[in-house]
Amino acid sequence: MIRKAQELKREVIKGLRGGQGEVEIVHLLEADKNEFNGKGKLFAKFTLKPGVSIGWHQHSGDFEAYYILGGRGLVNDNGREAPVQAGDMVLTRNGEYHSIVNNGAEDLVFIALILLA
Amino acid sequence: MIRKAQELKREVIKGLRGGQGEVEIVHLLEADKNEFNGKGKLFAKFTLKPGVSIGWHQHSGDFEAYYILGGRGLVNDNGREAPVQAGDMVLTRNGEYHSIVNNGAEDLVFIALILLA
Repeated sequence: MIRKAQELKREVIKGLRGGQGEVEIVHLLEADKNEFNGKGKLFAKFTLKPGVSIGWHQHSGDFEAYYILGGRGLVNDNGREAPVQAGDMVLTRNGEYHSIVNNGAEDLVFIALILLA
Repeated sequence: MIRKAQELKREVIKGLRGGQGEVEIVHLLEADKNEFNGKGKLFAKFTLKPGVSIGWHQHSGDFEAYYILGGRGLVNDNGREAPVQAGDMVLTRNGEYHSIVNNGAEDLVFIALILLA
């Protein structure tokens, strides 16, 4: 099954996990349509404009990977702050915490994958 | 845990699934390190130079999603041929078949995710 770019489900969320600004999400697979077969709950492309963030939160019962496609961000990786850019991967395991902010001048774009623990 | 771009596991496979040329794979999560927690087996960035392909094959016991990041390709989606480009998603469910070829002039780059059925 092919879903063209314009057919993918888009969402804009303000203040995601207590973060600043609006996060744009393009869903690649949809949990509502059982497209994860019970193995996960999110596979999506996120876009954060400069200054936009996803607040600090814990993953409980699942784990998340970010793969940075473009832009620059600052991640709090379970208590440790580190810069990220295109090609970097952030893995937040079950029980761990993270946050991310676009602290650059371009859009921060990444793929996010959440699988069940 | 953050894995910088240069730390990600890279692989070059010739004739993947009977396809033409060499496919470059950057592994974002590694099954060998139990990073899928048993839910999947591949989360990777694939790069196919012009003319390179992944041959026609069936997914059995798992399913795969491609998310096209750049370039142009021709997918055989379980018997139906269709062009793909940046932003398009291809879902090959358990039991279905697919192949992909870079029929453009630029690198064809996509994210591939294989989860267990």
